[in-house]
Amino acid sequence: MKELNEISREIALLHSTAGILSWDQETYMPKGGSAIRAEELALLSQLIHQRRTGKKFRTELGKLVDLETGEIRVDGLSRAERGALRAYHRDWSLATRLPEKFVREFALLTSESQQVWASARADNAFGRFAPYLERIVHLCRQKGEYLGAEDPYDALLDEHEPNLTRRKVETLFKPLKTPLQELIRRLPRPDSSFLQKRYAPSKQMAMSYELLEALGFDPHYSRLDLSAHPFCDATHPSDGRITSHILPNNPMYHLTAAIHEGGHLLYERNLPPSHYGSPLSEAASTAIHESQSRWWETLIGQSLPFWRHFYPRMQHHFKSQLADVSLTQFYKAINAIKSTPIRVDSDEVSYSLHIILRFELETALIDGTLEVRDLPDAWNSKMEELLYITPKNNAEGCLQDIHWSMGGFGYFPTYTLGNLYAAQLFATFEKEHPDWATKAAKGDFQEMRQWLKQQIHTHGRAYTPPELIKRVTGHALSPEAYTTYILEKYS
Amino acid sequence: MKELNEISREIALLHSTAGILSWDQETYMPKGGSAIRAEELALLSQLIHQRRTGKKFRTELGKLVDLETGEIRVDGLSRAERGALRAYHRDWSLATRLPEKFVREFALLTSESQQVWASARADNAFGRFAPYLERIVHLCRQKGEYLGAEDPYDALLDEHEPNLTRRKVETLFKPLKTPLQELIRRLPRPDSSFLQKRYAPSKQMAMSYELLEALGFDPHYSRLDLSAHPFCDATHPSDGRITSHILPNNPMYHLTAAIHEGGHLLYERNLPPSHYGSPLSEAASTAIHESQSRWWETLIGQSLPFWRHFYPRMQHHFKSQLADVSLTQFYKAINAIKSTPIRVDSDEVSYSLHIILRFELETALIDGTLEVRDLPDAWNSKMEELLYITPKNNAEGCLQDIHWSMGGFGYFPTYTLGNLYAAQLFATFEKEHPDWATKAAKGDFQEMRQWLKQQIHTHGRAYTPPELIKRVTGHALSPEAYTTYILEKYS
Repeated sequence: MKELNEISREIALLHSTAGILSWDQETYMPKGGSAIRAEELALLSQLIHQRRTGKKFRTELGKLVDLETGEIRVDGLSRAERGALRAYHRDWSLATRLPEKFVREFALLTSESQQVWASARADNAFGRFAPYLERIVHLCRQKGEYLGAEDPYDALLDEHEPNLTRRKVETLFKPLKTPLQELIRRLPRPDSSFLQKRYAPSKQMAMSYELLEALGFDPHYSRLDLSAHPFCDATHPSDGRITSHILPNNPMYHLTAAIHEGGHLLYERNLPPSHYGSPLSEAASTAIHESQSRWWETLIGQSLPFWRHFYPRMQHHFKSQLADVSLTQFYKAINAIKSTPIRVDSDEVSYSLHIILRFELETALIDGTLEVRDLPDAWNSKMEELLYITPKNNAEGCLQDIHWSMGGFGYFPTYTLGNLYAAQLFATFEKEHPDWATKAAKGDFQEMRQWLKQQIHTHGRAYTPPELIKRVTGHALSPEAYTTYILEKYS
Repeated sequence: MKELNEISREIALLHSTAGILSWDQETYMPKGGSAIRAEELALLSQLIHQRRTGKKFRTELGKLVDLETGEIRVDGLSRAERGALRAYHRDWSLATRLPEKFVREFALLTSESQQVWASARADNAFGRFAPYLERIVHLCRQKGEYLGAEDPYDALLDEHEPNLTRRKVETLFKPLKTPLQELIRRLPRPDSSFLQKRYAPSKQMAMSYELLEALGFDPHYSRLDLSAHPFCDATHPSDGRITSHILPNNPMYHLTAAIHEGGHLLYERNLPPSHYGSPLSEAASTAIHESQSRWWETLIGQSLPFWRHFYPRMQHHFKSQLADVSLTQFYKAINAIKSTPIRVDSDEVSYSLHIILRFELETALIDGTLEVRDLPDAWNSKMEELLYITPKNNAEGCLQDIHWSMGGFGYFPTYTLGNLYAAQLFATFEKEHPDWATKAAKGDFQEMRQWLKQQIHTHGRAYTPPELIKRVTGHALSPEAYTTYILEKYS
């Protein structure tokens, strides 16, 4: 293991380096530096790929596991070490199964496609993007075949979320549709016009720092900056950076994004630094990561106890905007159902339906039962069917997300899985800590942070996502806790 | 050449990457991230060193030059290509002559020494630093021997400044002493108390951006940030970053540093990007680089024509502080002789004497004619002899500079060489453009920037510093232009 860990630590250092370069690119880099930055990042990718797929790693890995099957060949390993070894083998398999030629072709196409997508979205010109998307769908299908699953889409899912399959996603998503649809049909639309007044950016920043304190945000190890799109980029538990974006007439955009990214950051901050470089210091999966951000963003950050504590601070910062607004009015406004065709602007209830739409369309694209040229119509009719909304145009319809242009088929489902994981974890936490709301209303989140650290963060990738959720909650992932939570909150 | 350029481009990309990491470390990195940052930088250094000293580079270089003597073996190269090849060989020789074991020992010692130096300076405890300095002097002597010069100090000089020797430095420095000493004895100390009022940091920033425009500072390719110590870190002509530091009660500190670093930046900005990675896109030398920063900082930034244009802007930003101060008063104040024991706080006239002091002491340390334990006394008596100042303690005496703790023996002389180069270049420029002052007084520096670009920047390392100065000014470097300039300005 020592040898594997050493190679992996070097890979991690190169990854962290690339992380800083990426963060810089989105925050402070002069625009003119973008071409050389792309070259720097490409070189780092290449150095990482060489180490990951190199002879040295393969030889050391082969001493411990059967390279073909992943079966562990040595005795006396701890549970965590076995988990780490399994993760090493998984990453190595994924990295080596794709031919170099294919990887280059895929990288080249998606890099170009992202630019075409951005211009196509700006000009509402789906036809410009369509030929690229056709090619991407083709390559993603091929990718799934290289990765060796019977159903190519299963392989694409598994790439983002270990052990996830189309069948599992269908089983998890099916029970969500009807109750969520009923809610968005039935729920009243409260007044939220006071959230469209002007909120000074500097005060928005002051408020977000206060909220982040609830998550234990520590400036000695963390930063909050601004960028076009919010993100979290943690290069090490001791250096984690989140960004948000400020819209002067929509304060909740910034605050919500800051808490969301803060939830991701808390995970990274609590990964054990002593294992830096090994899978034991990496997050369990994309969906588990998303569960941590959504825990803080929605379960806590859109809860009444949270705002019992923080709303007076909001009113303090924004006297003229909120003086006449009661806590109840505010709470209702930030949880209002928004009939928006845009996923990232949507509310907690509609969000999953936005994801289900994408899941159904992307599986059809990969299967070949939906042609790219028919996507705009399919998108719009599904949007009407699921969300009772008709997008004005393709820019706010099937062109709204960057994911497919990056070749990210199989990624969307992890968003909703994150919500399901969060709700199921939270139900367990609530049983163990029935007084959480009383503490939250006092601004005390220490126990909650500690619980997440011990149950989730500290294990890195020792457990697969299914193992982890079973271990913590006693059950496999199911949509039950999520629907219960949503129905209770919105009834 | 193509093969050499390819390896070198990869090295340059790793260098640029390390440059961003270093910049980040001094500007935005959360303090807690310093340990992992040191590891990231160490890995990059190692990757760079491997490529520089590796078999591939050696083989390709050996096809074009005699590795032992550096003699070029191929015909048909352009002047610039021959210069690039000579630079490749020089760098390769320097990188391969030092045994790896020695390099590691040197890096380890100087890394530890810097920390000990910082604490020793803070506590005014020379005794704590002395054993480290002894060890550093020993290793520097050894380094000089490895690098193969007859006089180890010559090798240390040459490392920073190609072809520089102790003999040359002595010849250049000797004529400076008496005239400079006379000036600082004779010159009156004008009132500059208005420069010690409070100048709001945000307005200082606004003013520095205006000044930087004179140098063609373009935010599309450049940044100005704040850090503890000002520096310039250009990773590519398209991405150059400078920092300054703001002292609310000393506005000229920030403005001067911004112009100084801006001068460095202009050089980097004008290096030909098409040669990125090759010596043809690298600065000619440390001293030539310094000549560019000092050109703008002193010859221009402390000149009357410059402030004819910018002083009204200063008064605009700082009404209450400068309303009653005339341009002449301001000009005299920013050029006042300051009897300070601190090099970085000193004026244009005293500065060279501060450097001469260091040159005389560091040569004596390397020669062994001065023992480290006797350094404080030697420093203080030389300070009295040259500058008529007695440092209060060692913290503002021989402990003030970081250079020796980093093993930077042979570096100090390049500062004064920078001034001499700048003055000699400027004398030539002035002959060709006698109307420069009229244009400067209108804020027009375009011709000046163009001249520097064509005469200096655009050549990269095609010429050695002696070749370059001869080519541009018609003469070898001499102290004449500098003393003439100083005597004229201050008489």
